Amino acid sequence: MSTTTVARSTAYKRIATEEAFATPEMIKLYREVLAKKSIDDIGFNSMWGFYSGSPSERAQSIIEKLQWLDERRIADMDASGIDIHILSLTSPGAHVFDNATGTALARSANDILADAVARHPDRFAGMVAIAPQDPKAAAEEIERGVRKLGFNGVMINSHVHGEDLDDQKYWDIFAAAEALDTPVYIHPNTPSDRMIRPFLESGLDGAIYGFGVEVGLHVLKLMVAGVFDRFPQLKLVIGHMGEALPYWLFRLDYMYKATLNSKRYASWKPNKLLPSDYMKRNVWITCSGMPWGPAITFAQQVLGADRVMYAMDYPYQFQLSEVELCDNIPMSAQDKKKFFQTNAEQVFNLR
Amino acid sequence: MSTTTVARSTAYKRIATEEAFATPEMIKLYREVLAKKSIDDIGFNSMWGFYSGSPSERAQSIIEKLQWLDERRIADMDASGIDIHILSLTSPGAHVFDNATGTALARSANDILADAVARHPDRFAGMVAIAPQDPKAAAEEIERGVRKLGFNGVMINSHVHGEDLDDQKYWDIFAAAEALDTPVYIHPNTPSDRMIRPFLESGLDGAIYGFGVEVGLHVLKLMVAGVFDRFPQLKLVIGHMGEALPYWLFRLDYMYKATLNSKRYASWKPNKLLPSDYMKRNVWITCSGMPWGPAITFAQQVLGADRVMYAMDYPYQFQLSEVELCDNIPMSAQDKKKFFQTNAEQVFNLR
Repeated sequence: MSTTTVARSTAYKRIATEEAFATPEMIKLYREVLAKKSIDDIGFNSMWGFYSGSPSERAQSIIEKLQWLDERRIADMDASGIDIHILSLTSPGAHVFDNATGTALARSANDILADAVARHPDRFAGMVAIAPQDPKAAAEEIERGVRKLGFNGVMINSHVHGEDLDDQKYWDIFAAAEALDTPVYIHPNTPSDRMIRPFLESGLDGAIYGFGVEVGLHVLKLMVAGVFDRFPQLKLVIGHMGEALPYWLFRLDYMYKATLNSKRYASWKPNKLLPSDYMKRNVWITCSGMPWGPAITFAQQVLGADRVMYAMDYPYQFQLSEVELCDNIPMSAQDKKKFFQTNAEQVFNLR
Repeated sequence: MSTTTVARSTAYKRIATEEAFATPEMIKLYREVLAKKSIDDIGFNSMWGFYSGSPSERAQSIIEKLQWLDERRIADMDASGIDIHILSLTSPGAHVFDNATGTALARSANDILADAVARHPDRFAGMVAIAPQDPKAAAEEIERGVRKLGFNGVMINSHVHGEDLDDQKYWDIFAAAEALDTPVYIHPNTPSDRMIRPFLESGLDGAIYGFGVEVGLHVLKLMVAGVFDRFPQLKLVIGHMGEALPYWLFRLDYMYKATLNSKRYASWKPNKLLPSDYMKRNVWITCSGMPWGPAITFAQQVLGADRVMYAMDYPYQFQLSEVELCDNIPMSAQDKKKFFQTNAEQVFNLR
């Protein structure tokens, strides 16, 4: 890791939008269910078996930093020139538990995060953790999180016991987020048991590839199911430069039209708009894990500079050099301020 | 479909590198096994159940055009300003059958294609069809196809009865291709039963998304397994603008290193190079299905102009306007000639 310190910018605040934390309670619960082998989820057992049990430097450091919510996290932010962390409970959060355990864990994590934001209001903002497996309770927690705790978005860690949110039983969550004008951030999880095996057997289930497929597929399922027609004001945020969907934009539109016209799938009802239209109306992307000029410039070009935001993915990708990389991407001063600051302020309703 | 005709270019030949055909024998065999429900492959039954049985204009037109190997195909090429089709047996080719049926089908398709190329040597070139489920026979057919029939590459339609080619039992195929200096083109198939369900239930298993994931994952599995260290001269070609792998390049390298250092996967042995190195040494991409300036320019930027080739994906994406789209992408005259002509001539050893 670099030892140089990145100065804060005077031209813009650097707001990092996908920054992870964990509560000691959640780590403890994860370790318990891993020891008991009581969670029937291949990806969870692989990923958290690794992070919670590996002696590797990467795993140890991440487990420790995830739990920092005061001076030590702020010292890392200072070292990397970051003004604000928008914090969210790390993946898969409360998704893997039964309804009661998951809902209680999400509430307690939200209380802990709200306290941390209250201690450091100039440095932290937060997203609501939910247990989407109980959609009604999740919708209530979104309302509590936004109205009472002052949070600025909702974090969903992709699939829910192997189901995706295109299933209408989950749509109370979108209704609540839309009504409160708060964005829903879909963070990757390992692919569900229904598709993980070909990835996992080659060690490609995680951030290197499976994560991106999991969220890219999830967003397309929401489109096909009509979520963005039913909730036209819904704001969705996805990381990792849009999980490659910006790169696929032409093909998504072309094959959406060709498939619809062919009447191949009985379940397909015509959407009001094309995939690229929803990407430019309902979806914002962040550069978490992808602090890379060519992809950032490309996404700004095809989606618009208003839709691309900075994120570091702390602590998973804490590298000081990456902030400077983003600083040095050729971009107008106006677009750079959008990228680092004002897009996030608007999407997340930061004061 | 547009009725305008695109003139041939005087500055370069337009060589289309991923152009599909089918033999009447293959269509007949597909219809027989679909009627008998004897192939245990969800994606095959969905895709070819549609193409071989749907009354839709798209399906009917495609089935017909796939079988054109003379004047009618050449008329479509003339109408769209295409000089040369590099032809390959359409997906999933001979993959779905038992060893004997698959090997016989591939051989007969190769004989038919060789005759077509002999009738129209200035307009057609061909890739060898194989039945990879019998790797030894496939390697022999590659040698026959290149040496005796004069073909210019090998077409593999991704997974083989749900297995990927990272399994060393398939490596005779790579050995044969490398020894003959002929490229292996990995074309999408629908994802295998091990991962197709979350895609298929939303109609996302095909060209709109599942295809790209299937091939992207396949290529990464080859890298992780060490195929490009074992066969350093192997030339791999993938379509659809590299199945989004160029967009992921930064993250692939970052997470490859992080994952390797973490020792998370016992099966991972260090490769000699990073994913982006193999993408720039062993892999070429074509714009099949993605005739889109921003992605083509991006890929040329991050991989180099020597690695990006034109393809139309006839008859699946036969649109005259798309050739003109590619003509009008801002690009130096030299890079445009590479894109349409000379890269293909070199990679496929066209005379």
